[in-house]
Amino acid sequence: MKLATLRTANGGTTAALATGADSYLALPATDVGALLAQPEWRAVVEEAAASTDQTVIAAADADLAPLLPRAGKVICCGLNYGDHIQEMGRDLPEYPTLFAKYADTLVGANDAVEVHGSGRVDWEAELAVVVGSELFRADEDRAREAIAGYSVANDVSMRDWQSRTLQWFQGKAWDGTTPVGPVMVTADESGPHDVEGFNVRGYVNGELVQHGNTSTLVFGPAQLLSYISQFTILRPGDLVLTGTPGGVGMGMTPPRFLMDGDVLATEIDGIGRLENTFRIHAPVAVPA
Amino acid sequence: MKLATLRTANGGTTAALATGADSYLALPATDVGALLAQPEWRAVVEEAAASTDQTVIAAADADLAPLLPRAGKVICCGLNYGDHIQEMGRDLPEYPTLFAKYADTLVGANDAVEVHGSGRVDWEAELAVVVGSELFRADEDRAREAIAGYSVANDVSMRDWQSRTLQWFQGKAWDGTTPVGPVMVTADESGPHDVEGFNVRGYVNGELVQHGNTSTLVFGPAQLLSYISQFTILRPGDLVLTGTPGGVGMGMTPPRFLMDGDVLATEIDGIGRLENTFRIHAPVAVPA
Repeated sequence: MKLATLRTANGGTTAALATGADSYLALPATDVGALLAQPEWRAVVEEAAASTDQTVIAAADADLAPLLPRAGKVICCGLNYGDHIQEMGRDLPEYPTLFAKYADTLVGANDAVEVHGSGRVDWEAELAVVVGSELFRADEDRAREAIAGYSVANDVSMRDWQSRTLQWFQGKAWDGTTPVGPVMVTADESGPHDVEGFNVRGYVNGELVQHGNTSTLVFGPAQLLSYISQFTILRPGDLVLTGTPGGVGMGMTPPRFLMDGDVLATEIDGIGRLENTFRIHAPVAVPA
Repeated sequence: MKLATLRTANGGTTAALATGADSYLALPATDVGALLAQPEWRAVVEEAAASTDQTVIAAADADLAPLLPRAGKVICCGLNYGDHIQEMGRDLPEYPTLFAKYADTLVGANDAVEVHGSGRVDWEAELAVVVGSELFRADEDRAREAIAGYSVANDVSMRDWQSRTLQWFQGKAWDGTTPVGPVMVTADESGPHDVEGFNVRGYVNGELVQHGNTSTLVFGPAQLLSYISQFTILRPGDLVLTGTPGGVGMGMTPPRFLMDGDVLATEIDGIGRLENTFRIHAPVAVPA
C-alpha cells in the first residue's frame, strides 16, 4: 500500500491511503507517523478501506504535507554511493557517515522551498527509509523487519554553510528545505526493489542531473538501521536517509547551484516524484 | 529562580521550583520544557509558590530527571574554548562548529550512565543554555532576551565511534549519556555570570580534570542562539550546549577514558552539580 500525509482544510493534516492514481482515502491518524505508532496500523488501514463511511480526496485536490511532519529522528547517511564518494574525492568507508536533522527541516512533495541566506543551494536525491517499529541494539534481520516502507527525499544542502566547519549540520538542517514524499510504499510491496535496488533520479528544470541505484549502496537500509540502533533507539515514524548518488552541483565543473525559480524534481521508480520550486531570497554571492 | 524536572512516584515527571537548599515545590507542568512552553510561565511559578495547597518534595527524596526530557532540539557547539581548541590541535574558528543530538541522549543529574560498546568514553563539561521563547532569524539582542536560563551538561563522547567518520554524531548521540541539570537558573538571576562568566569544572573520581570560564567562549550564548536561528527555529525548552574547556581525556598524554564504576562530576558555580556513575559494559579494547 501507499500512504501519504495530506494537509486538511482546517489547517491540520491527515494520514491517507492512495487508492489508485487519482484519489486518496483519509485515515484516522493525523499523519503517517501517528498511524505507524499504532502497532495494529495495517488493520486500521484495512478497516478504513472497507468502511462505507469514507472521506475520499481527489489526487488533484490533495495538498501533500511532509510524509512525517513530526518525525522524532531524521538521521542521514552521507557518502554511501561509490560514484558520489569518488566525486567528493574520498575513499570507500568502513563505517557509515551519519548526521542528524530535525523534523522542521522537512517540507512537502510539491511545496515551494524558501531559502534566505545561502548562495550555494545544492541537491541530493535520496531513498528514505521509514521506521515501523522500535529498534534498539538490533541486528540486521530485526532491522529489516522493522522497515515500514520507503519514500523519496532530497537532502538539499547549503554548501556555503556546510563547508564553514567540519560538521555538516549547519548546511543540512535548514527549516523547510528537505522535501519528503509523496508517499511511503510499504516494504511488503517493494519486494523486487529490495533485491534489484531502487532507481533514484534527480532533475533540475527537467534536466537529469543524478541517477543511481540503491543496490550500489555501501550500507543498505537494514544495515543502516541496525548500526544506528546500536547507540540510539529508532521509533515508528523515524526517517533514515540513505545518501545520494553522483551528480550533485558542487561536484560539477564549474560547480552549479540552484537559482531562484529553479524546479528540483526527485524521483524513485515504484514510489513517486517530488517537485519543488526554489525561492532563493537575497542570494549571497559566493565565488566558486 | 531555580527550576528542575523531578521523577514522580507514578512513573511520570513534574516541573519543580527549588525553594532553598533542601526542598522543591511541584509545579503544574510535566517538565521544565512544558512549563516554558506556557508564555506566562513566570506567573504560573509565582502562583504555585503563593498557593496554600503545595506539594513539597524534600531534596533528599528528589529524583532528578533530565532537565528537559522532551527537548525538541539539543544543538551543541564544539571547539568553543580557546584552550580546548588548542588541545585538539585546531585554529580559532570563524564560525561555530555545530552538531545535533536528540532528547534521548539526555539523562538525569545523578543517574547512572550505561554504555554498551564503546571503550573510549570521554567527558566534556559544558554550560547549557535553555531557550525560553521562539527564535527564528533573530539578532543577538533578541536571542539574549530569549534565554530562559542556564544549566549544567556533560557532552559525554564515545571517541572510538566519533572518530570513525568525519561527522561526530555517532560518537555524541548515545541514548542516556548526556547528563543535564540539576536545575535551570533563570537568566535574571545569573546577571553577574553573564558578564563575569560561569566557572565550568569537570571531575573524575574527585580529581579536577577540566576548568574553564565561559567569558573565554569564542561564541557566547546569545551569539550561538542567533546564529542557529538563521537556519532553524528554536522553541521554548530547546537546549544549546556551548562547548567544553580544555582537559578532556583524549587530549591527555596518554589518553584517558572513563572506566566501569568511575564517577564523573560536572559543576558550574551558581547553578549546581551533576554526579554520574558510569557503567561501561563489555568495553571494547581500543589501543591508544
